[in-house]
Formats: sequence, structure tokens, C-alpha cells
Amino acid sequence: MIVGLGPGPAEWMTPEASASVASATDVVGYGPYVERLALRTDQRLHASDNRVEMDRACLALKLATEGRAVAVVSGGDPGVFAMAAAVFEAIETDPQWLKIDVAVAPGVTAMQAAAARLGAPLGHDFCAISLSDNLKPWAIVERRLRAACDGDFVIALYNPASKARPVRITQAFDLLRNVKAPATPVAFARAVGRADETLTLTTLGEADTSRIDMATLVIIGSSETRFIPRDGARHPLFTDLSSQGSQIDGLECDRCDGLRIRSGQCE
Amino acid sequence: MIVGLGPGPAEWMTPEASASVASATDVVGYGPYVERLALRTDQRLHASDNRVEMDRACLALKLATEGRAVAVVSGGDPGVFAMAAAVFEAIETDPQWLKIDVAVAPGVTAMQAAAARLGAPLGHDFCAISLSDNLKPWAIVERRLRAACDGDFVIALYNPASKARPVRITQAFDLLRNVKAPATPVAFARAVGRADETLTLTTLGEADTSRIDMATLVIIGSSETRFIPRDGARHPLFTDLSSQGSQIDGLECDRCDGLRIRSGQCE
Repeated sequence: MIVGLGPGPAEWMTPEASASVASATDVVGYGPYVERLALRTDQRLHASDNRVEMDRACLALKLATEGRAVAVVSGGDPGVFAMAAAVFEAIETDPQWLKIDVAVAPGVTAMQAAAARLGAPLGHDFCAISLSDNLKPWAIVERRLRAACDGDFVIALYNPASKARPVRITQAFDLLRNVKAPATPVAFARAVGRADETLTLTTLGEADTSRIDMATLVIIGSSETRFIPRDGARHPLFTDLSSQGSQIDGLECDRCDGLRIRSGQCE
Repeated sequence: MIVGLGPGPAEWMTPEASASVASATDVVGYGPYVERLALRTDQRLHASDNRVEMDRACLALKLATEGRAVAVVSGGDPGVFAMAAAVFEAIETDPQWLKIDVAVAPGVTAMQAAAARLGAPLGHDFCAISLSDNLKPWAIVERRLRAACDGDFVIALYNPASKARPVRITQAFDLLRNVKAPATPVAFARAVGRADETLTLTTLGEADTSRIDMATLVIIGSSETRFIPRDGARHPLFTDLSSQGSQIDGLECDRCDGLRIRSGQCE
């Protein structure tokens, strides 16, 4: 079982994930994720460094062929920039492993937790891009950032910075600033759901990228994303679609079975 | 509280979502979602049609100003093509509502449940696009589909078809077929987690879009997405990044602190 633990707190971990960990004989995962779990003394723990996804995947598959009930755990959703792709990549290398009964338990991923705290920035079309160029050339990251701007997607950036590549986030923001409006809302959501959670609301023009670390999820708005100003409290951030309809007359309206919208209202 | 119930089964509903519904005096939502919940007789139920998000949001905010503890429920994640954006859009229209204490409980959304069943198709950069043009012009959908191809994103399509606009999914596939390879893996994931769950594996060239309905989540691969052939069992679908690295020599490698990758392997 490849299991998503969610962003951190137990209230965001699905019952399926909890049950999967409880029924495992062996738990394989990155140290800090595994440490969150209250494992029993009869469960074997295989904690490892963050950068050895393929080694972890192969260990898990080897244990499974030995008849162990293995839970490979990831923070967030294992299917989103996490262990599930690595496990299937490993499976492809050895026909023997294709016989293993593998299932994935999805989880709440970082961008969803960040969005929930901020308001509803991902409420309409969005994309998720990892800035890590461990495995992909930086040119592909740049191509995707450009395409995300062309499509006016809301953008969620995963793995925005690390000690090994501190300049990538600056390069990404330079690219975005050349295309998108300086007033575009930007949010840094750090360690959401954990004790040291911090939310930073800013704009593309004013964002201080030196505040971003590997525990930060960065959200960059589309042209329809905006803050709702509020006295004495954090400004909610949301993406609004109805403003688009209002710019276009004579639009077909599904709600009214063939009637037409004018200025965003059904006639 | 704006609450995500997940894709359907209780095992995918977070403890936070369950607790939020349990502590509500009033539950507002689309009929079928509300019916899943075992509400107590002291809880007031406000079920409605699917197409009146703004009415539902305004009702919930009105109840909250009257001192009721309101849970606005959505299937999946309320922050992803669901109620959260509608509630914040409503809040923006009335300064009085800005004083209401609103929180969002994230949930597992349809594309994550689909991806979990299929393997790991969303393992790397991806985007989510709603094909509904209720609120946005179709030209914006086309622009985003084109950008998603330009960026070689994996694409998750929400709201792919409805009785009111049966041709949109065909138009979308026509556009994608003009740009992407016919062999691109495609999956239709219908009603994942429910009794009538069905998964269809196909390719962009061969996909029969007449099988797609409003309960279907469509995933279209990037150039790195592939099936793993397997005898007598469903072929897992995953997106592989390491194949990209192998095409490029002399890439910087974060794993090795400054060493370089050749043919996808650290030297």
C-alpha cells in the first residue's frame, strides 16, 4: 500500500490511510513522515533520507515479495510529487514485481491545505509544478511556467527551494514577472497544519523569494485571483470566474438551457 | 465551515470533515452529497440543486449571521471546482459577511481518487481544467487546453460533459488530437469509490468520448505517461520523470551535491 499521510495533523489523514498503516507489518518512508506515526512494537520501521525515492521503492517491493504487508508512506498525497510514481517506476524495471498487489491511498496534498487556509485560490483551473530539477532539466520547468502563464492558470509551486538550488525560485519569479501583472496575488504557505505554520500574502511584484524554503507551498494567482480586503484579519484569497463572464456578452448559458448571459447575469 | 466530503466512501473523508459536519446545526449542499451523511434529527438540512452554487453560498452566509453553525458540504475538495470559491465570491458582495468566521476543510478530490486507482499518473507536473463553460467562455477552455499541451502537462478534466453541452468533450478531444500523439495514454475514471466505479484505459487516438459523462474524471497523459503492460490485470498508469533526464547529458544533480547526471544516472 502506498499511503498518503496528508499535510501533517491527524485530522487531515483519511481513515483509509490510518487503517493501511495499522495493518502493515513494515512501514517504509522518509524519516520525519514515519516519525509522525505511532507505530506498534511489532511493526518494522524502515526510515530513510528524502533523496532516495527509488531505493525506498525497491526496498518496499522486495519486502512485499517476501510476504510482508508493506505501507510506503508519503506526506500529502503519494500520487502528487511523492512516492507513488517512484514505486511504479521501480515496478516497471522488474517483471517479478508486476505480480505484487499494489494499491494507493490518496491524501490531502500541500496545495489543498494551503488553499483551504487562504480561502479558495484553486477554485478554478490550476496547475501544479515542482521546481525541483533533480530529475528533470530546468528547461522543462521554464517551459511549464511559460505555458502556465499562457493559459492563465493559477499556479501551485512544489519544492520551491533547497540548499542545493537556492536560485531556482528566483529564476522562476523572474520568468513570471516578465509575463504576469505585478499586482498578481501571491501566497507563501509554510508548514500548513503544523505548529510553525505561517502564511504570507503578497503580490508578484513585491514577493520576497528569500522567505521561501522547502517547506513552503507557493501559490501564484491567475488574472481572476484576488484578495478580499478585511479590517483586522487576514484577507481571504480566491479565484473568481464570474468576472470573466461579465466581460463577454451573448455567452451561452448552460444554467438556463439555451438562454444567454449578459453582463454575467442570465437574461 | 466549507467542508469537503471526499469522492464518496467514508474511508476517504477526513476526520476534520466528519467532525465539522457533526458539530453543525445546519448543513447546506447539493442533494446527493447531503444524502450521504447520517445527520441527526436536531440538524437542519438544506439540500438544493447542483446549479445554484451562489444561492447556496448566500443561504449559508445568511444562516451564519443568524448565529447558526453552518457546514456547506461539497463532494471531493471544496476548494477544487466546488463550493469554496462560490462562498468567497458571495462574501465579497456584502461587507457584513466579511465578519463571519469562515474556514475550509480540504478533502480528497476526484482526480486524486482516480489517480490512486490508476497508478500514479499525476506524479509529476499536471493541471486541472473544468470543461464547464457555465461561467467561463469556451475560448478560455480552449486557451487552457492549448497551454496544457504546450507545457506537456498531464491533464485532469473535470465536468467533462453534461446534457446541456454534450459536444464540449468532443471539441476538447479534437483540439488535443491536433497537438498530442495518438498513443498518449488516456483514462476515464467514473464514480471512483462508489458502487458503480468503472475505469477505462485507452489512448488519445482511440478514446471513445461518448462513454464520458458528468461523473467521469478524464486523465490525459504527458509525453512521459505510460501504461505498464501486465497479463490478466489492469495495466498501471504512471508518469515517469527519469526518462527525461536520460535524454539530457551534463544535467546538474541535486542528489549528489554538484555532481552531474549522465544518462539518468549519477556519475
